[in-house]
Amino acid sequence: MLSRLSVVAVYLAASLSTVSCQTFRRLGTCPALGCVLPPDQQDFLPGQQFDIRFEVHAPVNGSEAFNGGVPDEKFNVTIAKEGGRSKSIANFFHLEEPTIEKWTFSWFEDLFAQDAKTPSVVNVASKIYRRVALYEPGTYTVTLKYYSGKTTTASWAVRPLATQKKAKNIIFFIGDGMTTNMITAARLLAHKTINGKYQSLLQLDKFPVLGHQMSHSIDSFITDSANSASALYSGHKSTVNAMGVYADSSPDAFDDPKVETIVELVTRIWGSAWGAVSTAFLADATPIALTAHTRSRYQYGALIDQALHGVTNYSWTKIDGPDAYFGGGAEQFLPGSGSYLGKDYYAEFAKKGYTVSLNNTSLQAASNSSKALGVFCKSNLPVWLDRNIFPENLGKLGNDPSGAKAAAKDIPGLKEMTLKAIDVLHTRGGKKGFFLMSEAASIDKQMHSLDYDRALGDLLELDDTVRATVAKLKALGILDETLIVVSADHGHGFDVFGSADTKYLAEQDGNRKKRSAVGVYEASGLSQYTIENPGVSYNTGPNFPLNWDPRYVIAAGMGASPDHRESFGVNKTGPRVPAATIPGRGSSDYYASSTDNPEGFIVNGTLPVDQSQGVHSLTDVPVYAMGPCQETFGGTYSNIDIFYKMANCLGLAQPTNKTIGGNGK
Amino acid sequence: MLSRLSVVAVYLAASLSTVSCQTFRRLGTCPALGCVLPPDQQDFLPGQQFDIRFEVHAPVNGSEAFNGGVPDEKFNVTIAKEGGRSKSIANFFHLEEPTIEKWTFSWFEDLFAQDAKTPSVVNVASKIYRRVALYEPGTYTVTLKYYSGKTTTASWAVRPLATQKKAKNIIFFIGDGMTTNMITAARLLAHKTINGKYQSLLQLDKFPVLGHQMSHSIDSFITDSANSASALYSGHKSTVNAMGVYADSSPDAFDDPKVETIVELVTRIWGSAWGAVSTAFLADATPIALTAHTRSRYQYGALIDQALHGVTNYSWTKIDGPDAYFGGGAEQFLPGSGSYLGKDYYAEFAKKGYTVSLNNTSLQAASNSSKALGVFCKSNLPVWLDRNIFPENLGKLGNDPSGAKAAAKDIPGLKEMTLKAIDVLHTRGGKKGFFLMSEAASIDKQMHSLDYDRALGDLLELDDTVRATVAKLKALGILDETLIVVSADHGHGFDVFGSADTKYLAEQDGNRKKRSAVGVYEASGLSQYTIENPGVSYNTGPNFPLNWDPRYVIAAGMGASPDHRESFGVNKTGPRVPAATIPGRGSSDYYASSTDNPEGFIVNGTLPVDQSQGVHSLTDVPVYAMGPCQETFGGTYSNIDIFYKMANCLGLAQPTNKTIGGNGK
Repeated sequence: MLSRLSVVAVYLAASLSTVSCQTFRRLGTCPALGCVLPPDQQDFLPGQQFDIRFEVHAPVNGSEAFNGGVPDEKFNVTIAKEGGRSKSIANFFHLEEPTIEKWTFSWFEDLFAQDAKTPSVVNVASKIYRRVALYEPGTYTVTLKYYSGKTTTASWAVRPLATQKKAKNIIFFIGDGMTTNMITAARLLAHKTINGKYQSLLQLDKFPVLGHQMSHSIDSFITDSANSASALYSGHKSTVNAMGVYADSSPDAFDDPKVETIVELVTRIWGSAWGAVSTAFLADATPIALTAHTRSRYQYGALIDQALHGVTNYSWTKIDGPDAYFGGGAEQFLPGSGSYLGKDYYAEFAKKGYTVSLNNTSLQAASNSSKALGVFCKSNLPVWLDRNIFPENLGKLGNDPSGAKAAAKDIPGLKEMTLKAIDVLHTRGGKKGFFLMSEAASIDKQMHSLDYDRALGDLLELDDTVRATVAKLKALGILDETLIVVSADHGHGFDVFGSADTKYLAEQDGNRKKRSAVGVYEASGLSQYTIENPGVSYNTGPNFPLNWDPRYVIAAGMGASPDHRESFGVNKTGPRVPAATIPGRGSSDYYASSTDNPEGFIVNGTLPVDQSQGVHSLTDVPVYAMGPCQETFGGTYSNIDIFYKMANCLGLAQPTNKTIGGNGK
Repeated sequence: MLSRLSVVAVYLAASLSTVSCQTFRRLGTCPALGCVLPPDQQDFLPGQQFDIRFEVHAPVNGSEAFNGGVPDEKFNVTIAKEGGRSKSIANFFHLEEPTIEKWTFSWFEDLFAQDAKTPSVVNVASKIYRRVALYEPGTYTVTLKYYSGKTTTASWAVRPLATQKKAKNIIFFIGDGMTTNMITAARLLAHKTINGKYQSLLQLDKFPVLGHQMSHSIDSFITDSANSASALYSGHKSTVNAMGVYADSSPDAFDDPKVETIVELVTRIWGSAWGAVSTAFLADATPIALTAHTRSRYQYGALIDQALHGVTNYSWTKIDGPDAYFGGGAEQFLPGSGSYLGKDYYAEFAKKGYTVSLNNTSLQAASNSSKALGVFCKSNLPVWLDRNIFPENLGKLGNDPSGAKAAAKDIPGLKEMTLKAIDVLHTRGGKKGFFLMSEAASIDKQMHSLDYDRALGDLLELDDTVRATVAKLKALGILDETLIVVSADHGHGFDVFGSADTKYLAEQDGNRKKRSAVGVYEASGLSQYTIENPGVSYNTGPNFPLNWDPRYVIAAGMGASPDHRESFGVNKTGPRVPAATIPGRGSSDYYASSTDNPEGFIVNGTLPVDQSQGVHSLTDVPVYAMGPCQETFGGTYSNIDIFYKMANCLGLAQPTNKTIGGNGK
């Protein structure tokens, strides 16, 4: 516990600003005053480990004020399997009764209360039962009785899943924020049609099975990448900013009730190798959620420590670090304010036998037999468009992963990192197989800043990586025993609605006249991105545009944006920054940036003016599957079902208790 | 031919405004000066009838000016099957050589030319070979030689498809403009979650097979509903505003080279019954494209005549009218300016033995053994939301299908029309089976006017209709022999990005402050549409929202819109009209309407200011399939593949010539 104190302090310091995370709900999963976490309607893999927290709330003021703000500490908790006898939680799982915890939190009941600065305060009494598991498939009812007569129940379903492996390996590609709309646009940019027929296709278009997954959170209909990644990896939805836990109301970011992830399961049960590759910083939500158990995704340093050492503040599934771990985010590895307890995590990884690569040459030369760490820059990797089309933009950055004040050089792309990870994982996993997650992170990041070209470039890089992966697996002779799944964690409300004549737009005066440059329906014409542009070095096809800067470009937009200026053409000087503050007008009051597309027309936004970027959207996202178990990925389902489908294909269910004592620990 | 003269006159009168249909392309399918229609890269069903047009262009002025504006009339045209001998077109198809046709058309090379009113003029020499077919699967090359040395070739593929029926019946539902984003939003409004798990689902969510289809036109990447419907029904993409033809450059809207549709094929080959149901007017693109062969979708009266009598100006597949034909659009049936040659089409249909119903009571009482026409209002049917939640809005309309100046009453919904159509088609088709197209048209129409609630209400009505159809087919004992396909023809760039507090929004002052009412991520919260609202008559569940007017509503938007005012709540007084002209500022200069959401904030648009509505978008749209051949609908493919999959399932291929003479006619 001691080692987490500094982290808790950071969380508390930030709590004034994160209070708004609970705007309009006391606790999203707990409309009553008694809370069971995991709450009602949750599903479980047989044998999957988790914690159970109970909370009794006593609102001091506000619309729910109750019992003078004194929470009932004598609450009673039981569990019963359908058709079985009800037992106390402690008895059922053969645990000692935990001690009561108490804390206070506050929330705002609505925007009026927030404006008036009148929070509602809640006192809490709680117990948590740690590291239990349910083995037998079926329905279980958990009952919390409190305040002499109040009851909260939770119905849990342990799914009947397979114990036999059908796939030796799984490679799970995540296009962060990637939607069907974006895939359609990327195809238009990179692949040529003749009279309506595509002459080549995306690799994704060739997948035999397609599904849709619903990405919503457990307690809000728009998700972030932390809790959606967690749903994909654990089969349990969570709350915005949380990973590998059900979010409780306590201030400690590392005491929330945990759920076991696919990486923890596949190493515990089969001893498989595992890896993560991302074009984001490695502590970012999508890669880190494989091992993270926290209420706050922003605890970057501590989460890198969790990836290497596993959970250390409680008894939990032991993991011994990834076998391959490639991405950005040197800040959490260089000793200093960004790393956990200020330590040198290059050294920490090296101590555990890792090769450490800080550039692509070193990465490719690294042994496939050793665990491998690759950190290629600070922050996120520069995007495909800057690495391949506008490399002069890279020199402006001070992102050397060694900590030098220089620009990172010799940076691998998603393809180079993924193919190397496969070599390492195939070598190290051997007969035990492997699990690899590979993330195209900047589809999301560039969509946030409305830089559609950069987002689509990274989507095409993902597609190209999947194409190369299929070829690589074939060459290794393991294509038939490897399940490949490509999906996303959520969407952005992007779509293409026509073309725009950049020449005409630039020469018109005024916001309204410039809009005439947009051509819709028949005037959208054909993609000019696929036409070779002699003398211009854009010619990066096949599978990428031949011209990133044609006169007629796609006209695209989002339903949700900050104020910005639009001209639709590629941003040559670096990633777009659409909105900015104006000196003297407040630090969270964003307007269209005067330096972004100065030749464009003004689009006033639909988002609150404190948002500098676009936001995630509701849409279901596509799922592509190829390989063993592919047939289970058709149709429409929840994001948690991706976990259960993968777990079923890997035979991770343990319907009888063989690993830890009792029915629980 | 004579009977088409009035139509041609209408087309010519309108031609000044429709010239812009060819903005930026001389002819979309013909970048060279010699044109083959069908052009390069087209696919065919074995035995499918079509026309072949050749054009030689002589641009008089502009960037392509050639040969003094004199087109080569001595061009030469041949066809060769792969590995076979090249023959003249006339010889190959045993046709007489057609006479040369000549005309002139003009186009603008770009927006600058359009502003300057400097069109490029083109003289044309052309021949058309009518009513041919290719039977043997394989690749055919058509060659046009012109201007002593210039050559245009077209490679055509006749697909090897089945001659055996696998499905007796097909029901093809089209949610016009329906995207995955909208389906996700509709689910959120109508189905309740508890802690992230849906307690009920859409019928679409239960379909076993999901695919994506690409909706783009043959010559522009954004389609309209005419040419996308045509692609779905014929396996041939076309041009915006065209149906059942490849668009040529001639001024006659009814002389373009035709392709046979699924309705013409299934009646010619199997004698099946067929029907169309739509919530649009029946002459609208999606229903009428089943039988229409025209360059101009706006020839409404003539197209209703084509639906009843088939093509009459040329020898073509005989059709004898639909067996069930239900929708709106009394204007084309009442004698007068909206009907073909001013005739009474209620009478024309009755003459051919149709029952004619003008309300739901009459419809339900009509014999299932007779052909049935049902026209329930002028224009489009009022939407589900107005019919079921705000019926007071119906009384304001003067849409009685009898021509009286009253409001139509007793209007059936999509479900009532579809279930009745199934009864009629099942009775009349008997052992020969049936083909039914059922369209939820106002998903598109209401998305155009940014009325998201009305669009989603009609999407839920479609889903409810599909649910009822499955039950109906089961009751009739024909579920197992009926393929059900649900898809769309194109999208709109709609998505939900959060929630909005309507109370807070209304009470804030100023465009910027009102935007603070939007909650994103965790502040999106949960759907309040599924919470019962005692005392309010909205409680229309299950499968529809319990409350259409909650305090917290979805915040949704489009990347492309006209100027408008947004407040996110339901429009209670009728369908939304977001943009309007301002007296004195020009008739095609749209601004946010002052009477639309006056409590909202201004969103300036991204579309040209002459657009009063939103537009179609690029995105691939989903395909759901259930029944015989369902397994062929997974993955990603072109919209034309829907036709080939359906034709294959119906065994419509004729790989040898049994029906008409020679290799052609």
